[in-house]
Amino acid sequence: MRNLLMTVSYDGTNYFGFQTQPGGNTVQDHIEEAIRQLTGEQVKIHGSGRTDAGVHARQQPFHFHTASKIPVERWGLALNGRLPSDIRVLTAQEVPLTFHSRRSAKRKTYRYTINANRITDVFQRNYQLHHPGKLNVIAMQESLPYLLGTHDYTSFASRHSTKASHVRTLYDARIVVDSSANFPGITGQGILHFYVTGSGFLQHMVRIIVGTLLEIGEGKRSPESMKAILEAKDRKAAGPTAESKGLMLWSVEYDEISE
Amino acid sequence: MRNLLMTVSYDGTNYFGFQTQPGGNTVQDHIEEAIRQLTGEQVKIHGSGRTDAGVHARQQPFHFHTASKIPVERWGLALNGRLPSDIRVLTAQEVPLTFHSRRSAKRKTYRYTINANRITDVFQRNYQLHHPGKLNVIAMQESLPYLLGTHDYTSFASRHSTKASHVRTLYDARIVVDSSANFPGITGQGILHFYVTGSGFLQHMVRIIVGTLLEIGEGKRSPESMKAILEAKDRKAAGPTAESKGLMLWSVEYDEISE
Repeated sequence: MRNLLMTVSYDGTNYFGFQTQPGGNTVQDHIEEAIRQLTGEQVKIHGSGRTDAGVHARQQPFHFHTASKIPVERWGLALNGRLPSDIRVLTAQEVPLTFHSRRSAKRKTYRYTINANRITDVFQRNYQLHHPGKLNVIAMQESLPYLLGTHDYTSFASRHSTKASHVRTLYDARIVVDSSANFPGITGQGILHFYVTGSGFLQHMVRIIVGTLLEIGEGKRSPESMKAILEAKDRKAAGPTAESKGLMLWSVEYDEISE
Repeated sequence: MRNLLMTVSYDGTNYFGFQTQPGGNTVQDHIEEAIRQLTGEQVKIHGSGRTDAGVHARQQPFHFHTASKIPVERWGLALNGRLPSDIRVLTAQEVPLTFHSRRSAKRKTYRYTINANRITDVFQRNYQLHHPGKLNVIAMQESLPYLLGTHDYTSFASRHSTKASHVRTLYDARIVVDSSANFPGITGQGILHFYVTGSGFLQHMVRIIVGTLLEIGEGKRSPESMKAILEAKDRKAAGPTAESKGLMLWSVEYDEISE
């Protein structure tokens, strides 16, 4: 038996998230079916985490156990030939049998993209939240340090979270403004990429942080209010859950994997 | 009667090109229907040129005559509310009645994008030709100067071209290599953007140039062969027509428009 760790990129627009669920049509379902076609094995893959319907991944790790002897460098091309064009396996490596793509993960980074221009970008329409109204980006940036460190993030978790603990650690949070996409006809504040890195994230956590950041940017809340929201440990204290389509799992980091 | 000049951006994936044709489902059809819904007028819009099925536009001008008194700054939002999400009107201005979006155009720029990485980018899959094989980009670049100037471009025109003259002027042609999209899992030569600017383009002209450039990059032709291909004035002398999805109308320039 071998343990294979792969990374996959997907456009989540047409899927009900990564992880298998009763309604079907998940990224996991498609990958497991491609493995079955390739090896004849009905394996269960384990992702580094769930993603909601409509959320994308630049690079999401998953692992699975297989008895197949196919050399590791052949898997990517072989699976991609059996996957829809909006799902692509990027890398494959053999890892120790004890390695687990979720439990072994040390840091995860998500990116949330806000199009703050007057008009949407047709080529990015499924990957950006459109917010044409004026945003105070400085205020949004000033609120971010309050989120960092080790805290109970209940205020930023879905009420349906089933996790025993809502304590997580956020290492970094930043907003990068890209106005390079602007050209005659595209006016506004540009594209805002919000990057956040942490030990792990609760259900809807990034989207609720973004919903709160937008209210700060709109002047409905002060940058300092982020502190009180966090301390409230109450979902009602935070802003709304931002649309899923702006969210992308950016990367997942592990300690050096010894083989 | 007023003459309105607008620019539109569209993802051409789901359309049979810009210009109305018997099969329907063109960008023009959708824009004319949105104008009809807004004003009640059945107008005919005139684009700066045709685009093939699957070709995109960052910024394509079109004009039309209307009796509507709706202020020019209101049109964009009003039409976008009636258009599919993959078509967006960017700008609108009133121009002299004699202005024509195609006849008045001085320079057009197209971009053709080749993904020369091993694996496709799921988020750009409809906007890039995937060419994972090794390309000699220097050779491709060396071939470009032969294309510039005023020439009969019959070798680079569809056999179905109905134009009386195939003489056009190309002002600029360049390949810009972007390897910023590369990250662990995405390896290869990066993204190649081919930009070409000219007085006008014949049917399939950019795609045939790209098909020829790829053969030069693959070592099947020399950079200098571009000269002989052009002089042959024979479609058979050039390479194949590259896929439409990598092509985007980038911009159209006019002389200063006096009102």
